[in-house]
Amino acid sequence: MSELDDATIDAFQARVTRGECDVLTWWHSCQARIEKLETDVRAWEYLMPPMSTTTLRGSGQLLCGVPVGIKDIIDTVEMPTTWGTGGYLVSPGAVVDAAVVTLLKRQGAMPMGKTVSTEFAYFTPGKTRNPQDLSRTPGGSSSGSAAAVAAGMVPLALGTQTAGSIIRPASYCGVFGFKPTVNTVSFSGIKAFAPSMDTLGWFARHIEDICTTFAALTRSDAIEALPDLGGIRVGLRNLPGGRPLDSDVAEALSSTARRLEQAGARVFALRLDASYDELIIHHQAVLAYEAAQSLASEFQLHGKDMGTKLVELIEQGLAISYADYRASLLAAEQCKQGLSKVFVDEVDVILAESAPGVAPQGLEATGDPVYCRAWTLLGVPCINLPLNKGQDGLPVGVQLIADRWQDERLLSIVRTLVAVTS
Amino acid sequence: MSELDDATIDAFQARVTRGECDVLTWWHSCQARIEKLETDVRAWEYLMPPMSTTTLRGSGQLLCGVPVGIKDIIDTVEMPTTWGTGGYLVSPGAVVDAAVVTLLKRQGAMPMGKTVSTEFAYFTPGKTRNPQDLSRTPGGSSSGSAAAVAAGMVPLALGTQTAGSIIRPASYCGVFGFKPTVNTVSFSGIKAFAPSMDTLGWFARHIEDICTTFAALTRSDAIEALPDLGGIRVGLRNLPGGRPLDSDVAEALSSTARRLEQAGARVFALRLDASYDELIIHHQAVLAYEAAQSLASEFQLHGKDMGTKLVELIEQGLAISYADYRASLLAAEQCKQGLSKVFVDEVDVILAESAPGVAPQGLEATGDPVYCRAWTLLGVPCINLPLNKGQDGLPVGVQLIADRWQDERLLSIVRTLVAVTS
Repeated sequence: MSELDDATIDAFQARVTRGECDVLTWWHSCQARIEKLETDVRAWEYLMPPMSTTTLRGSGQLLCGVPVGIKDIIDTVEMPTTWGTGGYLVSPGAVVDAAVVTLLKRQGAMPMGKTVSTEFAYFTPGKTRNPQDLSRTPGGSSSGSAAAVAAGMVPLALGTQTAGSIIRPASYCGVFGFKPTVNTVSFSGIKAFAPSMDTLGWFARHIEDICTTFAALTRSDAIEALPDLGGIRVGLRNLPGGRPLDSDVAEALSSTARRLEQAGARVFALRLDASYDELIIHHQAVLAYEAAQSLASEFQLHGKDMGTKLVELIEQGLAISYADYRASLLAAEQCKQGLSKVFVDEVDVILAESAPGVAPQGLEATGDPVYCRAWTLLGVPCINLPLNKGQDGLPVGVQLIADRWQDERLLSIVRTLVAVTS
Repeated sequence: MSELDDATIDAFQARVTRGECDVLTWWHSCQARIEKLETDVRAWEYLMPPMSTTTLRGSGQLLCGVPVGIKDIIDTVEMPTTWGTGGYLVSPGAVVDAAVVTLLKRQGAMPMGKTVSTEFAYFTPGKTRNPQDLSRTPGGSSSGSAAAVAAGMVPLALGTQTAGSIIRPASYCGVFGFKPTVNTVSFSGIKAFAPSMDTLGWFARHIEDICTTFAALTRSDAIEALPDLGGIRVGLRNLPGGRPLDSDVAEALSSTARRLEQAGARVFALRLDASYDELIIHHQAVLAYEAAQSLASEFQLHGKDMGTKLVELIEQGLAISYADYRASLLAAEQCKQGLSKVFVDEVDVILAESAPGVAPQGLEATGDPVYCRAWTLLGVPCINLPLNKGQDGLPVGVQLIADRWQDERLLSIVRTLVAVTS
């Protein structure tokens, strides 16, 4: 990767300001890198044609000249959308861009293309391979976005998460993947799957760029590093249910705990009551019931074309009663309220597994989102830290989690951790 | 209105079963009524062409042969969508129907056409007139749906509410209007405005039909009347802020309170702490911030074509900081949790104003949603009761409100009230 390709967004902006390159330089550099690597990585469903000019940008744009990948379940006017269907459902171009696409463009970002998604962001994989090892899955559902960022094809790409679709591919591909608090960025123009959990997020190689994008999309203040993590309380939470921990994941958790302590934080095991152990089951019920509703039209028209797992999920959802669905939502609500108290009384952030291990071999499945389900149901912000390697030198992530709407604090803590310990 | 046109859905189904009419009878009857009244009422943006055959329906469909109006911010494949823009943004036909359209069709309902919406479901009115007095507004934003149901053009029509867009037009037009708990029915394929509050609901002339539609869309059990309202606690809550109560509204509240007591309920004034008085302000902040995000693309492309009030709202939203937005959401969250406790400890349902009075004169504005803002922000289910008349014999509604996910109980209470006291 060239020095430019691996620059942070802020560093690129500074170069443009100093006249060392122009607004289109990064775009062209990314295009060259895509040309070189796409045959192997297959991250893209559609690429924008080469661009020779761009409309004049205003000052103060946080993402001026930043090439960005758009997950292919997000509406775009200038590019087709296929929702990972492989062609059985295609829009040649939406009437308007999804809201987030305009928010990015308003800040000067330039959509590079549409990145491969699994079918409707569920389990049926697309063509994408893991750039760290082409024989392995990049994870899903935001497969192309994670792989494109990991391969240095773009500095930034959008993903969505309803189970583990940002955190898991970020862990498998070795990049930062951030899922903000649910409903932080409008889902308008993005295909819904389970609306009470669907969350837009993004991938980057640098924590600074995750932070810049958060400020660009929410208009929050800039997120800065703290001097250190003194006073920060970190609760380690392992997945309940007695599942044996993969040795790579165990080592990544210990290593991150040490790193946090080195930065001044206090790390300890977090105990949550038994109701939290049920969240994975409730997540599955809410996912299935809401997907059966939200994808009713797609199922009606194209049920025969759909992947087996998606059909099974929708049929499972159609068999869940409204009363059981509601009971699962109310159980989650209780845990949300309880966790908010935990986040005041006991911890600032939670440290947890991102995925069951390094990326599995093969492209026929995208891995297991089990470590993300509870957090996604709770709507809390989560970020994958790509700071560790496991077997064969492959990336293995862990996630840090904060309470709902504590996104800025979470990002600030991660920024500090990276700054202090790298 | 003919006897058929004013039948309940269940009564129509019984007739079909007895061979007294066929599945298409209601549809044709509604078409004739639309032909007669549409020049005056102007409820429709688009009407389906006459239908001579229909595909065979399965048994067990709750809405078999029921003509339904679809608000024109809801995607449809066979009909254009204009989002109340008067033509500056039009989709000739969506790639797939919005989820709720398929859910209705699956239950045998037949879309009659697209009903007039205000511009993007905000304040710029469409062409619709109030069928109770053509010189008055039907309310908005679900103007055409409320008017079409009130005029007997269809027994059922879909609306959406982000401030007061179902309850207010239902009050002005004199029909039942139901806004379920937020996120009860998928918003997939419906134009988002403020996603944390956008809620799909529906209008009908009969409470039984509101209940049947709830069961059809959620797959809940059938909602039955209770023997009486003995033991039901009803808290009367007036809008805070010392606004003088319109005499028609005051009389509608008293009359409904007497009716509730007659059915066995206990009605008393509900006191809520001062934090609830701020909800109207928080609603406005959330509305503006989220609308500025969700309608970013529409504003970018068509800001110059948009109505003044919508532009003002979006500009207001762009001036609200992320920190202030978050503070408003967190304040609402506190009230939600507090209100859930009130709903356990003190009341079963809340009785409150639906609108500031009868429908205002003129078509240049759709009235004030102030009485709905707090409840919509809280995500609670609300239903307008069209049981009272005010000046000039015009309808004036009141609303009953329950805790989130107590929709079935709320509907059952209203069904009982109507059955016991009519």
